[in-house]
Amino acid sequence: MSKIRVGCIGLGQRGGSMTKQIVNNFSDRAEVVAVCDTYEDRTKTMADWVEAQGHKRPFETCDPYAVIHRDDVDAICIFTAWEWHIELATAAMQAGKYVGLEVGGAYEVNDCFKLVDTYEKTKKHCMMLENCCYGQRELMAMQLAAEGAFGEIVHCEGGYCHDLRNEISSGVEIRHYRLRNYTNRCCDNYPTHQLGPIAKLLEINRGNRMLTLSSFASKARGLKDYVKMNAEKYPHLQETEFNQGDIVTTVIKCARGETIVLTLDTTLPRLYSRNYSVRGTKGAYFENGDMLQLDSMGMNHETDSPKDIWGNGEKYREEHKHPLWEKYGERALKAGHGGMDFMVLSAFFEAVEKDAVPPIDTYDTAAWMVVTALSEQSIALGGAPVYVPDFTRGQWMMRGDSKSDLEFSLDL
Amino acid sequence: MSKIRVGCIGLGQRGGSMTKQIVNNFSDRAEVVAVCDTYEDRTKTMADWVEAQGHKRPFETCDPYAVIHRDDVDAICIFTAWEWHIELATAAMQAGKYVGLEVGGAYEVNDCFKLVDTYEKTKKHCMMLENCCYGQRELMAMQLAAEGAFGEIVHCEGGYCHDLRNEISSGVEIRHYRLRNYTNRCCDNYPTHQLGPIAKLLEINRGNRMLTLSSFASKARGLKDYVKMNAEKYPHLQETEFNQGDIVTTVIKCARGETIVLTLDTTLPRLYSRNYSVRGTKGAYFENGDMLQLDSMGMNHETDSPKDIWGNGEKYREEHKHPLWEKYGERALKAGHGGMDFMVLSAFFEAVEKDAVPPIDTYDTAAWMVVTALSEQSIALGGAPVYVPDFTRGQWMMRGDSKSDLEFSLDL
Repeated sequence: MSKIRVGCIGLGQRGGSMTKQIVNNFSDRAEVVAVCDTYEDRTKTMADWVEAQGHKRPFETCDPYAVIHRDDVDAICIFTAWEWHIELATAAMQAGKYVGLEVGGAYEVNDCFKLVDTYEKTKKHCMMLENCCYGQRELMAMQLAAEGAFGEIVHCEGGYCHDLRNEISSGVEIRHYRLRNYTNRCCDNYPTHQLGPIAKLLEINRGNRMLTLSSFASKARGLKDYVKMNAEKYPHLQETEFNQGDIVTTVIKCARGETIVLTLDTTLPRLYSRNYSVRGTKGAYFENGDMLQLDSMGMNHETDSPKDIWGNGEKYREEHKHPLWEKYGERALKAGHGGMDFMVLSAFFEAVEKDAVPPIDTYDTAAWMVVTALSEQSIALGGAPVYVPDFTRGQWMMRGDSKSDLEFSLDL
Repeated sequence: MSKIRVGCIGLGQRGGSMTKQIVNNFSDRAEVVAVCDTYEDRTKTMADWVEAQGHKRPFETCDPYAVIHRDDVDAICIFTAWEWHIELATAAMQAGKYVGLEVGGAYEVNDCFKLVDTYEKTKKHCMMLENCCYGQRELMAMQLAAEGAFGEIVHCEGGYCHDLRNEISSGVEIRHYRLRNYTNRCCDNYPTHQLGPIAKLLEINRGNRMLTLSSFASKARGLKDYVKMNAEKYPHLQETEFNQGDIVTTVIKCARGETIVLTLDTTLPRLYSRNYSVRGTKGAYFENGDMLQLDSMGMNHETDSPKDIWGNGEKYREEHKHPLWEKYGERALKAGHGGMDFMVLSAFFEAVEKDAVPPIDTYDTAAWMVVTALSEQSIALGGAPVYVPDFTRGQWMMRGDSKSDLEFSLDL
């Protein structure tokens, strides 16, 4: 089989890292043939770097459509600012390309319909490259759920809890898109790291779906305080108003009766967490503390201290290694970023090679991205519940269980 | 000063324990002169016990109004089932008694208005005996907030996370009121352990107030599964339907822009937690892990592990002991239940002695209790935001800051 010819659009912090990962770890099956960024210097730097690794110098352009419409490109990876995600993904699908889309949220509900409409018309897939679906802890939870260890799952939580004050405030200097989003908007602008794994676990679009969403924002004080405390570094931001509430809480109700609580928490001091938890009738998993609390462990819930079981998830993972981690864990970890990027790119390239439905398909991508647009709506409406569209148009009842889904890239 | 003559109504698990604590720890300032329970055996057992401690045998009755209308009673402590809380509290206030009310939620918004109307008419106070306001961790957070360690606080969370499956399912045998509430209702039926300390911290009714509330319930599966797994113990509950969702998430927005997230989590396996957290522009406190994460600690939020700072709250508490704990901590801990009951009863008796406004006053009691009624409304309305009444009728803007409030019982 010939190598997949990849065009990479968006070469900022994340796009640069992902493009390099493709070159470094997937050169046996994929070739970066085109690179593109709004900023010419980024494009040139990346082309230089690819060449320096001993590969053919990729085509360079600042026009994403020039990449999308090349005949020598099989797959387009979109790592741009959020604002261009759906526009470029649909254009690429229309051009007959398989699309890998970096995580991010949608700005409008209708855009998500465009995404699935374009898939249904072109039969070209758009896979969200949600690496956290492949996290060790997240896959452990999937495996435990499949084994029935949680009993019936009724509730999940997750957060993107990442102190980004420095990165956001430096938006002008590092040419990052977050700054304009934090000054102008208020929503859960980054829901998928948590929602992705939860949606897989709850079989969203495969026997279940999200029904309603309500979203609430605290006042916005973190960034304002931060740029004042660092006035010499951010003189141009002293009068800036930030619209983005510091903590955004989103509650989603599912067709089968589960609740999902998502938190965006990016502008206050704290250590990193994805705050993942799974709650079932027979047990719980808490990412904070990496703790399993299962009835089968014979806990005394009144007297046992969480301190004594801190980190017991690790022991479980060693003893019941997830097949994907058993097979690819070592290679994945070597590739960096906790191995998740390696895993998600492996799954993506496997799907492209086979021209198969990817593990995170266009319906998933649309359903996960729409959470941002709906969160913005609900917050604007004072926390009113808003309806989550059914992008599958009823097919979610017939799209199989999540078990087959779990094994997505075992034969990659 | 002569001793406070106390009538105790409700002598179940909690009421029995509290009545005994009054006799054991406050006999220098208070005398239990009347005891009452629907069940005659409980009343007799308690009267016997009081007598056996060397005190005068209290008046015994199954009729709460017979206690309320006695001339030899100064203060009424209500430890009954939730359903009688407001009815008995208002009756006692009308009878000229100072009221101490065990925690619980209201069934109707209008009942909470009755409570404040009765206070305004009679000038007799109703203090919710919310012991968790006096918890060591909660008071530490209050102190840190007063010192400015959190910066501007924008968000708080708290949960009543307590696996009550055994207690609820045994409701018939132990004559407990939870069972009927869990089969018939769906709401945050027990919000105040978390809301109390948070409301104090956010100066609710003293410069701030709760504006809107939205509440969401997961499906109800925990108890159903539990009674099936323990069928020999609960043959009479095999066909019982439980209405109470396993996880209830409530989001409250405040006038000053803070968000509060409360969780009721009582019917699934897990270890106990009140899941308290405080988030500000300069730092955070997380009860889970008893962790302070402050900018002033010079954290590296990308690389530091929460494991390394697990329990650092304890060190802080040792070094900056809260005045109340400094002064009364040892005695409080000896009294049992983590010392909180001793603290809250001390504050209550001090207020009764002085006929003064208690630290948790009738407006607080009403505002905290109404959360249950509003949660039931919002869940019934599919998560629609509902308006939180202003029981102070505008006085919240003029009722002083919370600092004075912090020091409530220093001279007890």
